[in-house]
Amino acid sequence: MITIIILGVAIFAGLLAILVAFIFFRLVMRSDEGNERMREVSQLIEEGAHSFLSIQYRVLAGFVVVMAIIITLAEFFFSGTGLASVALAVAISFVIGAFASMTAGYVGMAVATKANRRTAAAAAAGGLNPAFRVAFRAGSVMGLIISGIALIGIGGLFLTWNVIFPYFGPVALWEIIAGFSFGASSIALFARAGGGIYTKTADVAADIVGKIEQNIPEDDPRNPAAIADAVGDNVGDVAGTGADIFDSNIAAILAAAILGASIDLVLILNGIITPIPYGLIPLIIAALGALASVAGVFAVRTHDYCEPDCSLNRGTYFATILFAILVVIVLFLLQIPIVIAISGVLGLLTGVLIGFVSAVFTSDYGAGRFQPVQSMVRSSETSPATLVLSGYSYGLLSTIPSVVGIVIALVASFVLGALIPVPGNIGFWQAGVFSVAIAAVGLLATNGLVVSSDAYGPIVDNARGIIEQSGAPEEAIEACDKLDALGNTTKAITKGFAIGATGFTVIALFAAYIQLASNMTGGIIFIDLLNPVVLAGALIGGILPAGFSAALILGVQKNADKLIREIRRQFREDPGILEGTATPDYDRGIKIATAGALRELLPATIAAIVVTIITGVVLGLEALAAYLAGAVITGLILALFMDNAGGAWDNTKKFIESPEYNHDREDYHIVHSAAITGDTIGDPFKDTAGPSINTLLTVISLTATLFLPLIFAGHLWIQSLILILIP
Amino acid sequence: MITIIILGVAIFAGLLAILVAFIFFRLVMRSDEGNERMREVSQLIEEGAHSFLSIQYRVLAGFVVVMAIIITLAEFFFSGTGLASVALAVAISFVIGAFASMTAGYVGMAVATKANRRTAAAAAAGGLNPAFRVAFRAGSVMGLIISGIALIGIGGLFLTWNVIFPYFGPVALWEIIAGFSFGASSIALFARAGGGIYTKTADVAADIVGKIEQNIPEDDPRNPAAIADAVGDNVGDVAGTGADIFDSNIAAILAAAILGASIDLVLILNGIITPIPYGLIPLIIAALGALASVAGVFAVRTHDYCEPDCSLNRGTYFATILFAILVVIVLFLLQIPIVIAISGVLGLLTGVLIGFVSAVFTSDYGAGRFQPVQSMVRSSETSPATLVLSGYSYGLLSTIPSVVGIVIALVASFVLGALIPVPGNIGFWQAGVFSVAIAAVGLLATNGLVVSSDAYGPIVDNARGIIEQSGAPEEAIEACDKLDALGNTTKAITKGFAIGATGFTVIALFAAYIQLASNMTGGIIFIDLLNPVVLAGALIGGILPAGFSAALILGVQKNADKLIREIRRQFREDPGILEGTATPDYDRGIKIATAGALRELLPATIAAIVVTIITGVVLGLEALAAYLAGAVITGLILALFMDNAGGAWDNTKKFIESPEYNHDREDYHIVHSAAITGDTIGDPFKDTAGPSINTLLTVISLTATLFLPLIFAGHLWIQSLILILIP
Repeated sequence: MITIIILGVAIFAGLLAILVAFIFFRLVMRSDEGNERMREVSQLIEEGAHSFLSIQYRVLAGFVVVMAIIITLAEFFFSGTGLASVALAVAISFVIGAFASMTAGYVGMAVATKANRRTAAAAAAGGLNPAFRVAFRAGSVMGLIISGIALIGIGGLFLTWNVIFPYFGPVALWEIIAGFSFGASSIALFARAGGGIYTKTADVAADIVGKIEQNIPEDDPRNPAAIADAVGDNVGDVAGTGADIFDSNIAAILAAAILGASIDLVLILNGIITPIPYGLIPLIIAALGALASVAGVFAVRTHDYCEPDCSLNRGTYFATILFAILVVIVLFLLQIPIVIAISGVLGLLTGVLIGFVSAVFTSDYGAGRFQPVQSMVRSSETSPATLVLSGYSYGLLSTIPSVVGIVIALVASFVLGALIPVPGNIGFWQAGVFSVAIAAVGLLATNGLVVSSDAYGPIVDNARGIIEQSGAPEEAIEACDKLDALGNTTKAITKGFAIGATGFTVIALFAAYIQLASNMTGGIIFIDLLNPVVLAGALIGGILPAGFSAALILGVQKNADKLIREIRRQFREDPGILEGTATPDYDRGIKIATAGALRELLPATIAAIVVTIITGVVLGLEALAAYLAGAVITGLILALFMDNAGGAWDNTKKFIESPEYNHDREDYHIVHSAAITGDTIGDPFKDTAGPSINTLLTVISLTATLFLPLIFAGHLWIQSLILILIP
Repeated sequence: MITIIILGVAIFAGLLAILVAFIFFRLVMRSDEGNERMREVSQLIEEGAHSFLSIQYRVLAGFVVVMAIIITLAEFFFSGTGLASVALAVAISFVIGAFASMTAGYVGMAVATKANRRTAAAAAAGGLNPAFRVAFRAGSVMGLIISGIALIGIGGLFLTWNVIFPYFGPVALWEIIAGFSFGASSIALFARAGGGIYTKTADVAADIVGKIEQNIPEDDPRNPAAIADAVGDNVGDVAGTGADIFDSNIAAILAAAILGASIDLVLILNGIITPIPYGLIPLIIAALGALASVAGVFAVRTHDYCEPDCSLNRGTYFATILFAILVVIVLFLLQIPIVIAISGVLGLLTGVLIGFVSAVFTSDYGAGRFQPVQSMVRSSETSPATLVLSGYSYGLLSTIPSVVGIVIALVASFVLGALIPVPGNIGFWQAGVFSVAIAAVGLLATNGLVVSSDAYGPIVDNARGIIEQSGAPEEAIEACDKLDALGNTTKAITKGFAIGATGFTVIALFAAYIQLASNMTGGIIFIDLLNPVVLAGALIGGILPAGFSAALILGVQKNADKLIREIRRQFREDPGILEGTATPDYDRGIKIATAGALRELLPATIAAIVVTIITGVVLGLEALAAYLAGAVITGLILALFMDNAGGAWDNTKKFIESPEYNHDREDYHIVHSAAITGDTIGDPFKDTAGPSINTLLTVISLTATLFLPLIFAGHLWIQSLILILIP
């Protein structure tokens, strides 16, 4: 009974979030669409975004079908249950997860492309606050929808397979939810990688030819890549970030549910009855987070005395505090050990800490006397090379406080959890890692608000471009610039947040994987680094994020090279474009960016899945666990490094372009060029490779979990082969 | 008796290497010193190098004294023996190791600064072959001396404490050798970091102002940083590389000796007698390697039909094959299991493989259709930003084949070793990791020749500068350029080699650490990654190389910024400098580079040692082991990435400057500037941070090993504190 109530509340919270999203959508659609030229430009962007997404989704549909077949076969032949119905259920929930992820990405993108011209119109008509209102509401649609879909999806799967058809048992339920999560994550990875390559191809090429070579402003309509750049904001930044947080959230809930359910099992076997099953606690926390997010979104209100930054902060503080209070009270009332509530809040605080570190390393004020961006501004005055070197170094340095923060929260939440009395030899371990997983769930619980605060940024970015191209007044551009700068800080914080979430989620998934592997092999697994085979696994895992991000950046660089040649060709062959008398061929730019992104889309991602399975089959389950750990270690460091270095280069350029910097110096163009070079290098770091690593880590962890039966069987086969060959 | 013979042979091989080095030194000194201007310039370089080294060594002397006191106290109060005499012996051998490292660095630098003008004179008088002969002989002095000192040092310590005063037992002997190794490594780290910062400060600044801004050639005497740049070649590249390989070699022998000796212990306890103690096998292999190196150095002979590259290859092949034959025959004759010989050769082959990968990623021909440098040349034509992105990506990609190679060799040598029958539960593990350590020793055995082939590069680089500044004929410069390009490929190979060596050495040290920790705690240690405290250790270890390299690069960038301002000031205030009528103030440049290097020298290095000890004390011995593993994973990847990315940028620039590239294109200066920007970014990657990571990994592994008793006692104290505080 209590189970049904909890699941009902979770699904209700999800529906509520989606309802609010719908209301906001209506409000956005009712705003003024702006003048003719604004609608025209926006139309071009909308068409470009839709065409990219529809081509991308057609490719992904093929992937989903093939993968569903593979999953069905793998589940049928190798899983413990061996039932065709379970195998099908896993494959279907994989398809549902994939479809949910695509829907979330599509809706976010669609709303964003409708909101950009309306934000532009609001900025032109009313300035800062009205523009922010439209953009933030549009961003909230995306934020609340992903929060809602996650709850409805997981709650629905629980309800279906635990309450309505409870015949398959908990192992089947885990595999079904893992299928759902894998579907969401693999699509998220494609969205991140594809959208990230698209957006940065356009951005890098537009900046290099437009700003450096021709010295024309950003978003200038004379630039043949201007529309592709604006399309990129929608398909990369809006759809990408949403998909990233969406998949982390689901994976975190899944991992915590698996770990909680195995505690329940131990308790039942020992005759201990708890009022609430541990396996359901993550859903409760996620539902409370969704409610807090909805409240937080409403708390973001601009007044004359409270401009956008103040109102965003207010919303965030409000949601965070409300969530903390709700979690403590509700868990207390439900007689759940209070240390779990503390772990959840601890996770959220870690996310805030990492976001704060990102802000210090990437904002132009720094922290007190430690001002990385200011020091990078001085490096720009020397040369692009020294600017790259200092950004590289600060990016690497920024990993230290964040990783130390994760380490402290990790150990603390583990120790807290270990205080819960669970019988058995490894009872304290089970309780401890469950608590770590709860920290991940807590970190991600307010994801609805976090994504809302992030997604409005690219919408404003688009609006700015539309204003620039429709010749609206200077004040409107200034209002957008102000919002854009604020959006950059939120974006850096969100990215830090997303990485922290990934760190915890992957560690939780790692523990869940171990739990499942131990169940399967019937013993406790040691991931002993002294075993060179295990160390080999860790080393291979370590190179995965490096190779993956290299492939993505190389993709951006190669595409951008092509697009640059095309832009130069247009400028050369039709001098009217630069004079403003001829319209550039925007379509060619969009086509080059699309083709390149789609070409790079599949290989790296499929390689990551295949390498994971092969490592497990060849080196065994223990080495595969070490492989996941190795990937987490280098992945976290690379992601933090690339996000923060990229953010710092971006804001260095922004500072040099801002009125605070002396534009009259003799060598301003040289300094500015150096800054743009830095920014251009940072673009694929922070918007393609860095954030993709998050999703990569989730995908490989889920691959290990979902294909565990197949990997185990494969490794046994390899072992027997070796025994036959070596007598 | 057999022990004394083996030790005698090892020491004899060491003496032989030093004797040959002395003969080469005499031959170099007898060459023509060149004309007046050559001697003048060379004099300036020599003085600059001496003044830097003497200031650096004065600072290091303080470090050595303080550290010796700390070691004495730590050993006396915490070590198992608790004997003041042992504590003193460890401290003294630490001082000897430090002194040996300083001597090797000093001699290498001194010979190089004497050989540069002689190489210049030979190039001017006789062209390619005679110049190569002088430079290679001078390089061999360094190569053979470090090979010799290592053998004499370790052989001597064995002889003293195992044969002459065998009263302290094996544990004391290990600690004494660990002290020696720690002395060599910590000084090597300072030499690498300090020299690396010095050389790249000068190089970066000279390139940015001279080549990009003023468009004057490299090494032009009008550049106020020209002399500092040449000094840097000596103190950074010559002294640094030597110290790096020197310390890896000693650490590898130490690790293998510890692991071998613990097998001996097990065998003795089980009444099994082996003709040769396992603990002495590493010394035998190292001695054979030294003999092969000496022969290889003699095989490097230029003829009319065999130019420098052919002769270098011939020397390398000859030494490698000779070593393989010697090891197999000698180990067979000594009735040592043949799998050990195979592991040693396997190690050497891995080194060659990694070197080959580096060559593919950094040479301008690539491998077949895979041509990273050519693709980077095309990126230079687009912009500096895309060039940086492609170099970054190829650098990351280059880690994949190297790490996979290490993984295969690691697993193979472990499996091979595990075939040796050693009694006991963990007997197969002991034999396996001993075999891994032997692979490290084998990889490093021919270090005498490897360093010789590497060290001639900077000497030629210097000679080129001297010729440019003394107005010698164009053909002499061309000869030097040809030698320099060859030197760059050797350098990339050597660096790959050094990283491979570090990888194996650190894994071996890791196993040795575990062996000692198990002895100390009286149980078998599991480094179980499922324990979040252990995972926390791995994460902290993972960020160490990132933070360390960031600190070094930031040091270079800040110093270079200062030097750039100074060079611009000189150009601005005295226009006669650029016209060639006034002499620039070289001394200011040297002073800025020196001061900066010394300021950055100590903090990062001492921080690494302190963080290692604190991690062990707070999180315990198991987490410390995971910390070492985490550091190895990210350290290997970062080092390979930075070395290869830097090398690829360097050679992209070289290709664009070469006659093969079309110099007549309209935008040549822009393309060239982009290439120089890439090269400048790569400079501290490949010559400061990347190679320093090797030494960093060795130093932290040795810190964990040497301070194990202190760390163990500290952690017990922390544990009891926690138990008191939490009732």
